[in-house]
Amino acid sequence: MGDVAVESNAAISEAVAELNMDSKPSVQDPTENPTPNVAEDDDEEDFVDPWTVKTTSARGIDKAKLIERFGSSKIDQPLLEKLEAVTGKKCHRFLRRGLFFSHRDFNWILSRYEKEEPFYLYTGRGPSSDSMHVGHLIPFVMTKWLQDMFDVPLVIQLTDDEKSLWKGLSRKEAMKLARENTKDIIACGFDVDKTFIFSDYQYMGQRPEFYGNIIDIQRCVTFNQVKGIFGFGDSDCIGKIAFPAVQAAPAVASSFPDTFGENKSVPCLIPCAIDQDPYFRMTRDVAPRVGFPKPALLHSTFFPALQGAQCKMSASDETSSIFLTDTAKKIKTKINKYAFSGGQATVEEHREIGGNCDVDIAYQYLTFFLEDDEELEQVRQDYTSGKLLTGELKAKLIGLLQEIVADHQKLRAEVTEDVIDEFMRPRKLKSRFETKK
Amino acid sequence: MGDVAVESNAAISEAVAELNMDSKPSVQDPTENPTPNVAEDDDEEDFVDPWTVKTTSARGIDKAKLIERFGSSKIDQPLLEKLEAVTGKKCHRFLRRGLFFSHRDFNWILSRYEKEEPFYLYTGRGPSSDSMHVGHLIPFVMTKWLQDMFDVPLVIQLTDDEKSLWKGLSRKEAMKLARENTKDIIACGFDVDKTFIFSDYQYMGQRPEFYGNIIDIQRCVTFNQVKGIFGFGDSDCIGKIAFPAVQAAPAVASSFPDTFGENKSVPCLIPCAIDQDPYFRMTRDVAPRVGFPKPALLHSTFFPALQGAQCKMSASDETSSIFLTDTAKKIKTKINKYAFSGGQATVEEHREIGGNCDVDIAYQYLTFFLEDDEELEQVRQDYTSGKLLTGELKAKLIGLLQEIVADHQKLRAEVTEDVIDEFMRPRKLKSRFETKK
Repeated sequence: MGDVAVESNAAISEAVAELNMDSKPSVQDPTENPTPNVAEDDDEEDFVDPWTVKTTSARGIDKAKLIERFGSSKIDQPLLEKLEAVTGKKCHRFLRRGLFFSHRDFNWILSRYEKEEPFYLYTGRGPSSDSMHVGHLIPFVMTKWLQDMFDVPLVIQLTDDEKSLWKGLSRKEAMKLARENTKDIIACGFDVDKTFIFSDYQYMGQRPEFYGNIIDIQRCVTFNQVKGIFGFGDSDCIGKIAFPAVQAAPAVASSFPDTFGENKSVPCLIPCAIDQDPYFRMTRDVAPRVGFPKPALLHSTFFPALQGAQCKMSASDETSSIFLTDTAKKIKTKINKYAFSGGQATVEEHREIGGNCDVDIAYQYLTFFLEDDEELEQVRQDYTSGKLLTGELKAKLIGLLQEIVADHQKLRAEVTEDVIDEFMRPRKLKSRFETKK
Repeated sequence: MGDVAVESNAAISEAVAELNMDSKPSVQDPTENPTPNVAEDDDEEDFVDPWTVKTTSARGIDKAKLIERFGSSKIDQPLLEKLEAVTGKKCHRFLRRGLFFSHRDFNWILSRYEKEEPFYLYTGRGPSSDSMHVGHLIPFVMTKWLQDMFDVPLVIQLTDDEKSLWKGLSRKEAMKLARENTKDIIACGFDVDKTFIFSDYQYMGQRPEFYGNIIDIQRCVTFNQVKGIFGFGDSDCIGKIAFPAVQAAPAVASSFPDTFGENKSVPCLIPCAIDQDPYFRMTRDVAPRVGFPKPALLHSTFFPALQGAQCKMSASDETSSIFLTDTAKKIKTKINKYAFSGGQATVEEHREIGGNCDVDIAYQYLTFFLEDDEELEQVRQDYTSGKLLTGELKAKLIGLLQEIVADHQKLRAEVTEDVIDEFMRPRKLKSRFETKK
């Protein structure tokens, strides 16, 4: 799966870079450096596909517009209430706070759960760099929670082949990265009895059913269609053109014969960032013709770059985010130095006018990682009123991320080669439901 | 690999069909039924690609023009002499008689053999019907001879996935046909220690290296290129567009790690009908970029339909050829009834003018199957002079094909499921040369 990358236009980028040259970015003078990114409304449309996510707004992507454009559904209060009723548990903070904000057929999955009809979870990652950043954890944290709630099998696809096609990585390099990323995924706490993590390069050579389903899907999709959905052109390589079927195939239960046998009728629920939706729109489109149920989806918003939601986050730019390999000291320095602030130029001004949580990256990151709703709401009120200073807000985030990253590193260090081998071994996964026909 | 299909234009088809309505087609009156197909020259160009072979000449495809258009080389006398010098054996009749008439880099393969440098053989078949006809044997008979001569490994690809993409066959059906065809291939006498027969659907799920090489190739070929080479369009499915890499990948030695390990430097020699050349032109084009040597090729001409070289030969039309399942009686009836004759309308006329071997299908078939050069030359002289009547010529072919088909049926019946399993099991193949690095 593609990385989430937020591209800014050059002018904004430079303005932000300039702002961040200041070693004390917590107090800024917006009159000196007028930042177009805090404008109330943006004329330019957001652009979202699996390879590029572009917004000119420091508030990030316009979720309502995206739901309308993609034709998905909003995750609304009644849906969350149904989820809580069905599972008997409080919703995950990602759902409570609208960080997962859009869905397709999630209602139907909840009904299946109620009726004790089987389904499974499917998510993935395109392994593009040794170290993942904290934003990469979002879909896995959500998925782990869903697995705990539903007690169903989970398959995690590592599209190492995609990285060869798009980034020119050699097979060996891409497979190595897939294995490295697998450690980070396992560290999220997945249950090995219910989780299969696979590399395309490896699994393709292990179970003929996977390739068989890919051909079934490729037969039903024309070049015209992938041109329309993904913007492919005549000068794109045939590997890219055919690839969407590789990402679609894990949505067919029979791609995992160890667990589902030849059963194609078990549907899946796919938690992913919304930029991956084009793949699954295509998958849903071909599903009836190939004879499997349309996958359901839960879409997350994008995790913003430290420099602001309108900036590109890149695994190759280590200042653009907090990496899972960062030391406590580095986390502190990065947040203090680079995290775009919604605070005012001087302490006096800040006390008077207050900060802007909508564009403040430290606050945004807290919405992802701070579990306590009341505490988060207190932070929001205090920062907005000017009671809480930017330095204090950042200190709160620094402490939280230092703890999360340190915990992750500890868990990751415990992942042995044997544990990786076991997660990546094709085998029957446990489920609360009968899955084979 | 695609079937050889010779499409005629409707008018010629009808004319030929009319001629063949006569239950005694051996004596025809060309003045009554003027057949445009025996004209000296044809204005229309032949058309040859992996799915369609079209000529309007009863003499078949213009070989010299095809060599020029495809940019291959003629198999000439010096090359055949070199082959005989190197192997110490007389060339196979297919080579002596120009039925394999074109090549790419065959010289180089012979030099490698002389220098004891390894290479392997690769051929294939698209399994499209339960029963193969005698023409389908041609590449396998040639390949078996080459294996005997060179004592090198041979891989035989059954493109069952292609049959799903082009003909809409289900995976199960295509794999079943592949297994059925395997029996016919084994009956050609291949050495199990040196021969691996594989179905794409099956082998893809057995060795990740095959898929890895496919991605390497797909990365180097654009839609524009396959559009130019194969004539694909925007409304073709993405499976067809990506498929040429699947047929190219067995030309990379490392697709067979059991025999070659990670060694990509061992080249292959591909005996095939010339309609398959576009696949291998593409393969040769990408080879340097993927890092494997260009495959060498030996191209055969097309095996003509009973109704004449300008007619479509189809596995679904059982009158168009002699099938390997035909009884002796059926062979006799079909040849007598349908084989297009180059003889004259009456015995008297035939004795006076003589027959035309260039368009006579019974004679053409003899060039493929009659081993003795002197005997064949005698037939040619006698038929041309009018000494040999069409009925006598056909009787000769009937006897020969009855023997060949009966032998084949006997050998095929001896092929057990265990034998098929062994040929199709990925394993190290024997070779006179060291193949692993």
